[in-house]
Amino acid sequence: MEAKIINPFLEACINVLNTMAMLKPEPGKPYIKQDLLSYGDISGVIGLAGAKRGAVVVSFTEKCILKIVSSMLGENYSSIANEDVESAVGELVNMISGDARRQLAEEGLKIESGLPSVVVGHKHKISTKTTGPYLVMPFNLNGDNFVVEVSFED
Amino acid sequence: MEAKIINPFLEACINVLNTMAMLKPEPGKPYIKQDLLSYGDISGVIGLAGAKRGAVVVSFTEKCILKIVSSMLGENYSSIANEDVESAVGELVNMISGDARRQLAEEGLKIESGLPSVVVGHKHKISTKTTGPYLVMPFNLNGDNFVVEVSFED
Repeated sequence: MEAKIINPFLEACINVLNTMAMLKPEPGKPYIKQDLLSYGDISGVIGLAGAKRGAVVVSFTEKCILKIVSSMLGENYSSIANEDVESAVGELVNMISGDARRQLAEEGLKIESGLPSVVVGHKHKISTKTTGPYLVMPFNLNGDNFVVEVSFED
Repeated sequence: MEAKIINPFLEACINVLNTMAMLKPEPGKPYIKQDLLSYGDISGVIGLAGAKRGAVVVSFTEKCILKIVSSMLGENYSSIANEDVESAVGELVNMISGDARRQLAEEGLKIESGLPSVVVGHKHKISTKTTGPYLVMPFNLNGDNFVVEVSFED
């Protein structure tokens, strides 16, 4: 997948977590998704349409999202079975997609997004069905992990 | 939510399962999603954009999807931890969304969709974040259940 499509999502993650939660996630080495599976405890999913059809999935471990949401909302959260935490995940994936789409529009690629869906379930597996490019961007947040997966149709 | 937006999704489910798996699901009474939660073992999610921003989520119990996929592919499947089953869920939600969008386009509402994402995880919970209408359509398939949730932005 061209860097000009991926970089906006990478930058958007860093921007959004920095702005919303005053946190600085460290990006790991992105890789093409093949048989590698990623599992999360809570995920946000958003569909992309327009110039290219795609999807963005952001999956967090429980510990990681509790750290983020506690910092975002200035209150201590200890469980993901919580409406505030769910809403925050929907908002985060929406903002990441929005910030990346804004950057892509500047490059002339007009992409729209659907509404964010949030999945809650211990170690669920989530993946997008495409024959096109599928990129996984792992992030580290003071020892906890989350992963952003971006896929597009060919 | 206007019936003219919902009915296409209801009809699309019946059409697609009939065509793809020669099965006739019985629709239950649709209801507005409030605090009622639905849980599935495997779900397909697809984002909607264009004239309206939204999402479609189709959630199956394990027993229900195994019955559908076995009928679709003419082979016995006994576990959802299977690439064929996952792909079939992605294909089903894609076709349901596609058939509903075709009907909506005939009504003058042009809606595009993202790529389908598939969630696998015992009793995961999934819901779309919107302040707009959120409709849940339960279906019964010879005693097993699946549910289609359609949500749109106001």
